[in-house]
Amino acid sequence: MTDTQTAIEQAKAVKFVILDIHGILTDNTLYYTNEGTKSECFSLADRIGCKALMAGGIGVSFLTSKVSRAMDVVGEIYNVPPDKRWGTSAKIAKLDEFEKESGLTDQDFCYVGDEMIDLGVMRRVGFPVAPANGAVEAKAVAALITKSDGGQGVVRELAEFILKAQDKWETVTTQLSNGGLS
Amino acid sequence: MTDTQTAIEQAKAVKFVILDIHGILTDNTLYYTNEGTKSECFSLADRIGCKALMAGGIGVSFLTSKVSRAMDVVGEIYNVPPDKRWGTSAKIAKLDEFEKESGLTDQDFCYVGDEMIDLGVMRRVGFPVAPANGAVEAKAVAALITKSDGGQGVVRELAEFILKAQDKWETVTTQLSNGGLS
Amino acid sequence: MTDTQTAIEQAKAVKFVILDIHGILTDNTLYYTNEGTKSECFSLADRIGCKALMAGGIGVSFLTSKVSRAMDVVGEIYNVPPDKRWGTSAKIAKLDEFEKESGLTDQDFCYVGDEMIDLGVMRRVGFPVAPANGAVEAKAVAALITKSDGGQGVVRELAEFILKAQDKWETVTTQLSNGGLS
Amino acid sequence: MTDTQTAIEQAKAVKFVILDIHGILTDNTLYYTNEGTKSECFSLADRIGCKALMAGGIGVSFLTSKVSRAMDVVGEIYNVPPDKRWGTSAKIAKLDEFEKESGLTDQDFCYVGDEMIDLGVMRRVGFPVAPANGAVEAKAVAALITKSDGGQGVVRELAEFILKAQDKWETVTTQLSNGGLS
Repeated sequence: MTDTQTAIEQAKAVKFVILDIHGILTDNTLYYTNEGTKSECFSLADRIGCKALMAGGIGVSFLTSKVSRAMDVVGEIYNVPPDKRWGTSAKIAKLDEFEKESGLTDQDFCYVGDEMIDLGVMRRVGFPVAPANGAVEAKAVAALITKSDGGQGVVRELAEFILKAQDKWETVTTQLSNGGLS
Repeated sequence: MTDTQTAIEQAKAVKFVILDIHGILTDNTLYYTNEGTKSECFSLADRIGCKALMAGGIGVSFLTSKVSRAMDVVGEIYNVPPDKRWGTSAKIAKLDEFEKESGLTDQDFCYVGDEMIDLGVMRRVGFPVAPANGAVEAKAVAALITKSDGGQGVVRELAEFILKAQDKWETVTTQLSNGGLS
Repeated sequence: MTDTQTAIEQAKAVKFVILDIHGILTDNTLYYTNEGTKSECFSLADRIGCKALMAGGIGVSFLTSKVSRAMDVVGEIYNVPPDKRWGTSAKIAKLDEFEKESGLTDQDFCYVGDEMIDLGVMRRVGFPVAPANGAVEAKAVAALITKSDGGQGVVRELAEFILKAQDKWETVTTQLSNGGLS
Repeated sequence: MTDTQTAIEQAKAVKFVILDIHGILTDNTLYYTNEGTKSECFSLADRIGCKALMAGGIGVSFLTSKVSRAMDVVGEIYNVPPDKRWGTSAKIAKLDEFEKESGLTDQDFCYVGDEMIDLGVMRRVGFPVAPANGAVEAKAVAALITKSDGGQGVVRELAEFILKAQDKWETVTTQLSNGGLS
């Protein structure tokens, strides 16, 4: 099988997508003001990606070292509920915990990461993904490297890839076109 | 007729331009602070685009799922009045309502959209337009794909296209050059 | 003479540089928050450009339709004094007024603009300049089109061009290298 | 020796890295609001770069003309302690002072700068570095020009270069992959 065929096979099995925040949902940039305020930027294309995945029956969670206010606001907007916004740098332990809780196993997961700290989880899950501008180390273990850079629609592109592999894209996009998921 | 000729013919008939906000007037990016503030960015080139369209006798409205404070501020600056800043995800229903109110029909409208949720309106109007970086689905139904990406002057480019098709560009730019529309 | 030679000849005569703000010192983008705050971004490279011009004995002013708080802050940082931060859309009238006040004439001025509203002043001054991403109309009347886009160091590049034409670059950069203009 | 071999030799000797802020850790852009707030943006990739350097036993300091609130916040996040965040435009004097204090000499230092004001220090230290988009003058005296632009991961790239030259990269990245440096 070619790399693409392998990725498609792995995508078929995905029941749950775990998304790193920095470098995936954002462009890895933090803005700081002289008043101590921090901000980060997110693409609305990924909101559609998250909603499309969930409309296709696939779970979605955020996993980052520390929950931020921005992540909570984005979670609201993307319909990722509070109990699926995970803040811990012990990423593998969190995966273990959630597998026990959910009954899902490694092969059921897609994880999207861009850095060395993500390698542990990426090596475990069935479908590891990295963005075009991820670290060399992350891209080396990824089954799929998205065309999009972090913060530029990685999740929208991934949702299309997974849902097409699972033959759900047509149905989901019809719903989206009708505003049913606005 | 070539695609360009078709687009020019459609542009000649345009009496009203409806602009989606996210991905058209903005680059589809939202900035969130740790204090809960949200921000979006807009190009001043599009302010000239809106003013040029209106100087050429063409109506302009914003249509997005939810009116934001930023959209109101931008509306003020671009001279798009409050009753032309529409916030609803029922985009087709809004078009129906405005056609009844204004007496305009589908062929009189240009709609600029970038995503699946825009497809319904794009298929209805006489002159559907998408930005260079719009979703594949939106670009597939567009009569004109602008060279500009969203947030990078789509409306300025579109205004020039429509006003040239309607032989009004010369007159309007003379006004603009003299600061008459500043 | 080639275009470049003409530009160099014109640059030799420059005693005063007038800078449009939006699209020249900024990338023409405005950021709006849901709290009504507006922000704009500036390149520190242009701070060096302004300081280099002034170190070379060349005056610098800002000319935009309306003075903003950001322009005042940037004026402080770039050493452009309050009476040289001009806010008016009657740009030609302002040029007339300043010529009377200063005794300078059209040939003494460089003006940097990017849009149709700038054309009147650009046609008057001795050395009209536009950024790489300026409007076609502005670039058509410019004697020099910078390699830089607006907000990406236009003034730094221009300062080097003018000061080299006037044989002052060496002296000025030695001062800058020694931190004398920090 | 080729330029690269020279750079590797110089990197082997590095015990301390001094980082200019603007144009190195940032993209040289400042954002100003209409309320007088200033902000700057930083890449999380450089946080990993700073942590990797320190994990490899190499000191790190910031050196900029004036300490800002943003620099302090970033210092916290990157683990660069307050006494290593230097704010002065007398950059050479600061180097002299720190050499006396630390016992380190010119050959022990790497300095990363992008502008004319940095040239003095760059000519002194053993391993001078400039970003891809630095000023021509800075790149002319640099032993290494990074592939990254300022604000896009210069320090991460530099850390890899130095730590590989010193045969520490493997060890450090294993630590990072295990989240030991999160």
